[in-house]
Amino acid sequence: MTAPGGEALSLKRMSLNTASVRHAPISSAIAACAEAGVGGVGVWRHQVAEAGASAIAEQCRSAGLRITSLCRAGLFPADSQSARAAQIDDTRRAVDEAAELGAEILVIVSGPVAQRSIEASRRMVREGLDAVLPYADECGVAVGLEPLHPMFAADRSVVVTLGEANDLIAELDHPRLRLVVDVYHCWWDAQVHAEIRRAVGRIGGFHISDWVPPWGNPLLCRALPGDGCIDIRGLRRSVEAAGYDGLIEVEVMNEALWERPLDEALPAICDRFTAHA
Amino acid sequence: MTAPGGEALSLKRMSLNTASVRHAPISSAIAACAEAGVGGVGVWRHQVAEAGASAIAEQCRSAGLRITSLCRAGLFPADSQSARAAQIDDTRRAVDEAAELGAEILVIVSGPVAQRSIEASRRMVREGLDAVLPYADECGVAVGLEPLHPMFAADRSVVVTLGEANDLIAELDHPRLRLVVDVYHCWWDAQVHAEIRRAVGRIGGFHISDWVPPWGNPLLCRALPGDGCIDIRGLRRSVEAAGYDGLIEVEVMNEALWERPLDEALPAICDRFTAHA
Repeated sequence: MTAPGGEALSLKRMSLNTASVRHAPISSAIAACAEAGVGGVGVWRHQVAEAGASAIAEQCRSAGLRITSLCRAGLFPADSQSARAAQIDDTRRAVDEAAELGAEILVIVSGPVAQRSIEASRRMVREGLDAVLPYADECGVAVGLEPLHPMFAADRSVVVTLGEANDLIAELDHPRLRLVVDVYHCWWDAQVHAEIRRAVGRIGGFHISDWVPPWGNPLLCRALPGDGCIDIRGLRRSVEAAGYDGLIEVEVMNEALWERPLDEALPAICDRFTAHA
Repeated sequence: MTAPGGEALSLKRMSLNTASVRHAPISSAIAACAEAGVGGVGVWRHQVAEAGASAIAEQCRSAGLRITSLCRAGLFPADSQSARAAQIDDTRRAVDEAAELGAEILVIVSGPVAQRSIEASRRMVREGLDAVLPYADECGVAVGLEPLHPMFAADRSVVVTLGEANDLIAELDHPRLRLVVDVYHCWWDAQVHAEIRRAVGRIGGFHISDWVPPWGNPLLCRALPGDGCIDIRGLRRSVEAAGYDGLIEVEVMNEALWERPLDEALPAICDRFTAHA
């Protein structure tokens, strides 16, 4: 199983987003990645809360693994001023965690529709980023805005296209602010390659999975690379042409994959990475 | 319950898309609409197959109802040439049905990803429309391309934004080809108002419903106007500013609504139309 026309990447270019192996303890996931020759891991905040940032950072350092991302913060829009301030505070705490981890980027998800207005909510996202970026800069942490699929526009992410995210990044024009490209969220967009080109020099993360219909819960229906209709390799070439040379995170939230033990799931993920990334 | 700032529309501006009352026989739906003072109905092809186009047309004519749309045809991409030809033939039959009904527009859904390539599939859509439009012109039938939400890109509609549909309509530049705007499919798009403006003079249909998270089956989770976060009235003003003066179809595919008897469901739909359209 290989994608048409293209050299396979080394597993050193792969990062395992730990949401792909949800039931594995973070320490086991890190150990398995090191053993498999994978280049890095993407970490979630609940893991930081449980295991501690310094313990995770130390285990990765001694295993020679990069921490490609900390997922996630943001979710700025809210009906009240106090709730919005709380989200900004929480995102500043996430900046601290990312700094302690040495994570290469803090992933920001924009957040839901508040005040029943997607337009007002988009302004709240801009204000939230504006409030957080100076602190990220102080801490030396890069912040990556990840637009989610439009099916999440109401409840998770009012920023739903690379184009919108690029506009916002251009408007805020802050050296620490990057774009995170996840193929699951943007593959359908006729402008996807054009917007990746437009983000030249500003891409801070690249996440892969695949899309297979028919699907059920939209949060959990990502497929392993190669099972669906996303041109993952074509998109990888685009982000590389736009200057991205970081690791490629495999982030597959899929209940069937989660049921598999780590020593089966990780080799399957690695095989698909080699064949399709 | 009224939408902020705006005069209520007469029910004569409303059309009931019969998918909103799925379990009602078409003849009952037409009779109920006439009784309620609704201006028109949107008809589906399985109803034409069951009841006959001429019987539906005659009942609507004598009740003073317009037939605002026939849903639907298109679905052009397919892996084989013969399957693509079959879809074109089927769409020509739908043109015949629309002509016999006197439907104001035949709604076209572009179709799924074929040959594992969304780009190749989009070319198949253009070819399919190109093959069908001369016949629609002969028959005097308007054809309306309706982009669906990006969550349907893989399995139903590779054309997922108003922008893409506008590009395709501009490229084909055929007098019978129009754009159908459904708020459920395009409300999330930061370009929605700009693309509606761009479609000036070419909007052939306007469908309303609402979006409420969390949701289950994406086909069946539309909500009654006013239950969700779509700015329906703002979008209605945009399509009117772009020259659309046709009826407004309420198309709410929702299992809870389907469970209600017609004499409860239709008044509820009419109330929401008056308050939120």
